[in-house]
Amino acid sequence: MEVEIATIGGYEEVGRQCTAVRAGDDVVIFDMGLNLSKVLIHDNVETEQMHSLDLIDMGAIPDDRVMSEIEGDVQAIVPTHGHLDHIGAISKLAHRYDAPIVSAPFTIELVKQQVQSESKFEVDNDLIKMDAGETMQIGDDTELEFVNVTHSIIDAINPVLHTPEGAVVYGLDKRMDHTPVIGDPIDMDRFREISREEGVLAYIEDCTNASKKGRTPSERVAREHLRDVMMSLEDYDGGIVATTFSSHIARVKSLVEFAQEIGREPVLLGRSMEKYSGTAERLGFVDFPDDLGMYGHRKSVDRTFKRIMKEGKENYLPIVTGHQGEPRAMLTRMGRGETPYDIEDGDKVIFSARVIPEPTNEGQRYQSEQLLRMQGAHIYDDIHVSGHLSQEGHYQMLEALQPENVVPAHQNLENLAKYVDLCESEGYNLGDDVHLSRNGNVIQLTE
Amino acid sequence: MEVEIATIGGYEEVGRQCTAVRAGDDVVIFDMGLNLSKVLIHDNVETEQMHSLDLIDMGAIPDDRVMSEIEGDVQAIVPTHGHLDHIGAISKLAHRYDAPIVSAPFTIELVKQQVQSESKFEVDNDLIKMDAGETMQIGDDTELEFVNVTHSIIDAINPVLHTPEGAVVYGLDKRMDHTPVIGDPIDMDRFREISREEGVLAYIEDCTNASKKGRTPSERVAREHLRDVMMSLEDYDGGIVATTFSSHIARVKSLVEFAQEIGREPVLLGRSMEKYSGTAERLGFVDFPDDLGMYGHRKSVDRTFKRIMKEGKENYLPIVTGHQGEPRAMLTRMGRGETPYDIEDGDKVIFSARVIPEPTNEGQRYQSEQLLRMQGAHIYDDIHVSGHLSQEGHYQMLEALQPENVVPAHQNLENLAKYVDLCESEGYNLGDDVHLSRNGNVIQLTE
Amino acid sequence: MEVEIATIGGYEEVGRQCTAVRAGDDVVIFDMGLNLSKVLIHDNVETEQMHSLDLIDMGAIPDDRVMSEIEGDVQAIVPTHGHLDHIGAISKLAHRYDAPIVSAPFTIELVKQQVQSESKFEVDNDLIKMDAGETMQIGDDTELEFVNVTHSIIDAINPVLHTPEGAVVYGLDKRMDHTPVIGDPIDMDRFREISREEGVLAYIEDCTNASKKGRTPSERVAREHLRDVMMSLEDYDGGIVATTFSSHIARVKSLVEFAQEIGREPVLLGRSMEKYSGTAERLGFVDFPDDLGMYGHRKSVDRTFKRIMKEGKENYLPIVTGHQGEPRAMLTRMGRGETPYDIEDGDKVIFSARVIPEPTNEGQRYQSEQLLRMQGAHIYDDIHVSGHLSQEGHYQMLEALQPENVVPAHQNLENLAKYVDLCESEGYNLGDDVHLSRNGNVIQLTE
Amino acid sequence: MEVEIATIGGYEEVGRQCTAVRAGDDVVIFDMGLNLSKVLIHDNVETEQMHSLDLIDMGAIPDDRVMSEIEGDVQAIVPTHGHLDHIGAISKLAHRYDAPIVSAPFTIELVKQQVQSESKFEVDNDLIKMDAGETMQIGDDTELEFVNVTHSIIDAINPVLHTPEGAVVYGLDKRMDHTPVIGDPIDMDRFREISREEGVLAYIEDCTNASKKGRTPSERVAREHLRDVMMSLEDYDGGIVATTFSSHIARVKSLVEFAQEIGREPVLLGRSMEKYSGTAERLGFVDFPDDLGMYGHRKSVDRTFKRIMKEGKENYLPIVTGHQGEPRAMLTRMGRGETPYDIEDGDKVIFSARVIPEPTNEGQRYQSEQLLRMQGAHIYDDIHVSGHLSQEGHYQMLEALQPENVVPAHQNLENLAKYVDLCESEGYNLGDDVHLSRNGNVIQLTE
Repeated sequence: MEVEIATIGGYEEVGRQCTAVRAGDDVVIFDMGLNLSKVLIHDNVETEQMHSLDLIDMGAIPDDRVMSEIEGDVQAIVPTHGHLDHIGAISKLAHRYDAPIVSAPFTIELVKQQVQSESKFEVDNDLIKMDAGETMQIGDDTELEFVNVTHSIIDAINPVLHTPEGAVVYGLDKRMDHTPVIGDPIDMDRFREISREEGVLAYIEDCTNASKKGRTPSERVAREHLRDVMMSLEDYDGGIVATTFSSHIARVKSLVEFAQEIGREPVLLGRSMEKYSGTAERLGFVDFPDDLGMYGHRKSVDRTFKRIMKEGKENYLPIVTGHQGEPRAMLTRMGRGETPYDIEDGDKVIFSARVIPEPTNEGQRYQSEQLLRMQGAHIYDDIHVSGHLSQEGHYQMLEALQPENVVPAHQNLENLAKYVDLCESEGYNLGDDVHLSRNGNVIQLTE
Repeated sequence: MEVEIATIGGYEEVGRQCTAVRAGDDVVIFDMGLNLSKVLIHDNVETEQMHSLDLIDMGAIPDDRVMSEIEGDVQAIVPTHGHLDHIGAISKLAHRYDAPIVSAPFTIELVKQQVQSESKFEVDNDLIKMDAGETMQIGDDTELEFVNVTHSIIDAINPVLHTPEGAVVYGLDKRMDHTPVIGDPIDMDRFREISREEGVLAYIEDCTNASKKGRTPSERVAREHLRDVMMSLEDYDGGIVATTFSSHIARVKSLVEFAQEIGREPVLLGRSMEKYSGTAERLGFVDFPDDLGMYGHRKSVDRTFKRIMKEGKENYLPIVTGHQGEPRAMLTRMGRGETPYDIEDGDKVIFSARVIPEPTNEGQRYQSEQLLRMQGAHIYDDIHVSGHLSQEGHYQMLEALQPENVVPAHQNLENLAKYVDLCESEGYNLGDDVHLSRNGNVIQLTE
Repeated sequence: MEVEIATIGGYEEVGRQCTAVRAGDDVVIFDMGLNLSKVLIHDNVETEQMHSLDLIDMGAIPDDRVMSEIEGDVQAIVPTHGHLDHIGAISKLAHRYDAPIVSAPFTIELVKQQVQSESKFEVDNDLIKMDAGETMQIGDDTELEFVNVTHSIIDAINPVLHTPEGAVVYGLDKRMDHTPVIGDPIDMDRFREISREEGVLAYIEDCTNASKKGRTPSERVAREHLRDVMMSLEDYDGGIVATTFSSHIARVKSLVEFAQEIGREPVLLGRSMEKYSGTAERLGFVDFPDDLGMYGHRKSVDRTFKRIMKEGKENYLPIVTGHQGEPRAMLTRMGRGETPYDIEDGDKVIFSARVIPEPTNEGQRYQSEQLLRMQGAHIYDDIHVSGHLSQEGHYQMLEALQPENVVPAHQNLENLAKYVDLCESEGYNLGDDVHLSRNGNVIQLTE
Repeated sequence: MEVEIATIGGYEEVGRQCTAVRAGDDVVIFDMGLNLSKVLIHDNVETEQMHSLDLIDMGAIPDDRVMSEIEGDVQAIVPTHGHLDHIGAISKLAHRYDAPIVSAPFTIELVKQQVQSESKFEVDNDLIKMDAGETMQIGDDTELEFVNVTHSIIDAINPVLHTPEGAVVYGLDKRMDHTPVIGDPIDMDRFREISREEGVLAYIEDCTNASKKGRTPSERVAREHLRDVMMSLEDYDGGIVATTFSSHIARVKSLVEFAQEIGREPVLLGRSMEKYSGTAERLGFVDFPDDLGMYGHRKSVDRTFKRIMKEGKENYLPIVTGHQGEPRAMLTRMGRGETPYDIEDGDKVIFSARVIPEPTNEGQRYQSEQLLRMQGAHIYDDIHVSGHLSQEGHYQMLEALQPENVVPAHQNLENLAKYVDLCESEGYNLGDDVHLSRNGNVIQLTE
């Protein structure tokens, strides 16, 4: 059976991830992501109104025109998890395919919300929930399976397409976490089993941290770090504010729990805080305290801040958006004095996140910190672990899967190259069984 | 009563710490440290044979000639903990004073060993062990007390000189650790009590991390990080080697325990590994497994390595010296292939330490890693937390002590200045109640 | 005679420079600067409308309330050169003093323009032009002299207050340039003469580059570098755009000349380009081609761009504002496609400036470059030399002046400290003859 | 005619450059370089005694075993210039080929010296001098031509193999310099002519600076920078010492000339200083003053230093080896006080070089500077320009040559990738007409 991989997007950048795998007549598309930075650099762009071709030209969404060269029918669109760089283009591209969107429950829910906010296209593909460990028939001889992995968002999976020629493992976006704070550990046993029983024809891998030595620590390590910081503030009787990635439910959960341990009422503020945590709670992924407040709308946020100011800042832990210093996020607005919450001398601001290392972010985050400091705030930062494999995780994956072919993804060429180096040290050879691809290419694996 | 502080050494560098406090007729000297880098930059210098004046000229040991200006009798020499930059000059300078050396038990033991290896001077000052929480009369109205603190070596204390004018707190070298792995948490209650009941005339503070945001994590966080790394290697069936600061007993203990948890026999190798861990065990600070091997002499080390090679590297965890890539340390020798231990493709080397950020160290460490990698080793690094307060710890100390005067120490001028900035944000004023001093100055606090 | 120095502003930051020197009953104020970054971090602040006390609270202009402690009459306000951090607060503070503003002709012209744009206060101090080499009587026994220096703006001087106790040299903002492109070399002979004949009581020095090794190169080196770049583009037949500091007339002159050498018509675009170059030409400091276009108003700029597009970009060199990526500057607007000038694939953009190293600038400059690159532009950057002395210049000044007292200025404490280190290596001692001061302090030099 | 390129060495590192081009039955080998860092990391390795296979295993010299797969006869071995990474393996590999070594005169002379110092192998290949602009017949239809280029060593060329299928241009190691201080400017006209008249089948390019924005400045810019530094020291009456790359004759010449301009006698000290400058002068490449002293042997160096100390350091400019802080070089020995030259307080040391950015170098250079500073020396560093093309030079070469195929070389994969990015922005496509190769691969260009 012919198996080929179309590397549609995310092979020249981090952002618009998209890969199609054809096995015989059947095609599965993994991820349809958005490169948000290509949108934000322009003022006043509202993607909801934009046509997909314009977004392709901007480099914001995958250029899926290569799909016309793929001879087969798309049977499923499979996002691996709910981050925008993996689902953000579904509302612009999915309607072109007569295929359901298949994903883990939390991801499906986020896809649903995204599709609803789209105003240009009608996206009415079926939405199918499938859990890690489950499988779905794709073609006569091909089957889709979800293997549980661990990432900085809940319900992340690595999809595997089982073909007569061996398994194709789409390995994007994971950390090898044996003690995640929410959910099950990464299912390394299943990866090893697939390799042993069936053989892995190809492994498509996320190269984000390919140049980082050692191992990405477990979320449990970030949790202990965070606990240490928050316990050290137990006696502080002024304001404490925390921020993290809204979609990082495990971290939000830790913040909520430690707030209670030091005698403060946690409250989630900001549109995306409300969205992700609300969704996670509704679907039963996390068991927040019954009375945990989550507010997204400006008015209810302001009302909450007024209540906090009235009842005493020392009784609350606002958990807010703005970890990257985004100009319109809640924490930045707090720094500018645009909310009813007064930051006073000695108040603490906890960034349970790291700055995404790009000058625009760094400048915005710096400004946000400066504004907070000008009001007397003390900053705790970098209480975080990455969601992506470092070098030793990559080695362990290669050892577990023993793939015949490796396809580096999720980076620009220079960072793909670093992962190629790593593969070569394990005996692979560039151009032979490691494939350096570009957006829009097709790699033929078997004939 | 006249109280003055002579800032003898470590006020223009990190290294040769030395401070004298006079209260009336009585003087206490805190620390007599060695600046090792001033020795190592010269080839073939053997300090054991050198005269103190030459070492002073090299900038290696404190220039205590300012003591002739201090009108009073030295009643005690008080090292705060056992690191060389605090005790390393005792063998060259202590014999000039007719006073006992008073310190915590572990430190006294290390002082004893250091004095024994000295061949130029006869140092026969009395050695007096005093535990944290205990006190000793110094003059008629002055008393010395040890307050328990937490640092990257066990049995660290902050000495306090109680005078009729208030307490003088010598605050060098600590982290605010509420969950240290060995020993008691930092005794913040006692600091607060001293401030409340007696008042703090002066606080001498270590500025090492004065420009570092946030809080230095507890040793417990480093331990969880280390646990995460070692558990992830549970299935590896080749060689694993670990290195850390030899004097960091809590870290060595964690390494020993996790080795056992993953089914390996830990063994300590290298002269200083044997020295510090042996001493700690003998004094009862740590309870190592009965059969834990510790070998310092070349022959016994080689014998151990041969045994490991014979019985299988997968059964052992050598814990060795060489975390900074020191050219003659064990790990560097292993990298050079100068020991019977063969590093093979895929073997793991764990640096539970960070590189001290100075180009010489960075170059040596890089070379050591290169040599290890040329043999196929995989490197895990930076599994560590600092032993020094970051900004928020400094804020908390100032709040606890409310000192009348602050004297920044343990850095060059530029880093002392960063701590002055921090003090000024708390209401202190440079030249008024924050004193920027230089080696050899005397600060008069009361008349 | 009593001589004292009030360190009013710029002793805790770079920005709002201001220093007063009293000799007997007479006082001279050197510089009244603006810290623009304290204004820009707030959205929508219009300083023209603001009261001085609010600007003082923001940290934007010097807090001159310490002047009430100085017993003497202000006889002159003396800005050293025309940069905003030296003249930008004149419109908010000068009217409080019954004293003329005395400065070099180019500076006076810029002060005049600044005062005219002020809408809150009426500033009607006399404006007196005085050239380098000239003197003015201040009190019976004190005289003000201007010594010619070289900086990144023309007509910069170092004022010297001659007193019976020796000269006070206010040494801010210079490079030791023996081959400036415009104007005379720095007058080291006069500095040496003052030292020899009269003695220097105090030297107030700019510490900006005190940690930079070696020597700041002459403007001539930047010019040769720029020439090399522009000559290499002689054959390029598309668009070339250059940007630099608008007030850097020597650099603008080089850009204009090299444009002509490679057969292009230079044209200056942007409000501040027109302002500074127009002023310099009108005062005869520079001899531009008769037909050199300078346009500041939006309409005339757009008209010029349309002409360029019509007659061919290959015939022009637009020299524009925007070297730091300022969001509203001309080059940033060109990057956003908001001007009629089309940047096409392969067009060159020359930044004859370096990014001021602060995350906000770095982020904005990065965004500007990204926008330019997205249109195909090629970037040449860093074709520049600093306007401030590096370490070896500092050594040469100390040697020339042999001052009795040194007062580091123009930086935060940590960078002042670096210069103190340098002075100490020349035999000065902190707290003795090197004075680390803070905003609002007074240093008594003689009694 | 079949044309293929064997990428033998330097495609995974900077160091052991080696590339073979086969056109029909005839093969030319370009460069046979040494990766010195792979030798130096081991203590006590003497390459003169070593066998080539051991050096191949160490990664020190090219692994030319791939040559057995190339069906054709080697007709010439062609080093492009005299740096060790291009000629250093000739003494270990050239004797295996029955072919002359053809190079520019200065390079041939250095090859001759290198071969003479070899003690393991007898290398007696013919040495043929050929000047830039000249050609040599290789096969019936193929011809070798040398095109003049500019680099940080004199007499550098880019060899071109003219084949019936088009020219193969081997483009390693050049800067686009239109005003070199010695020799002719780069011959861009000839490159354009080859492209126009014959077409370029393949271009092999050095990617060293592929990530560096803008243009590498001309040597003339470095010369003006150096002049500015040295003129500023005209009045200094103590010691001045300079160091630079020994093989950088243009820079040495500038140092010699400026020494004379400030009234000092230049003298070249150190083995490689004597070797390169002596050779250049003997061959007539540079016209040094008749009495310019050059001393390499320890005894004559010491004698010279004694003379300098006796006659006054203010009369001399020693130009010495040691710009990277190499432990055994002259300047490092001076820092350690191992020579009769006393460095005194205020003496100047000029590094007309930049540190090669690798931690080992950085550590060694730091140590060297520390030792010099401990004696009071003032350091001027970084007075230098690179010898390699930056991005804009790469663009100009691609435009001049319009090659059908591009082969990035002279870097590791990650840096090759950066150049691939650049090529892709010019319309090339990876895997199509840009070839990412590894050591030991063969690229078939035509059949």
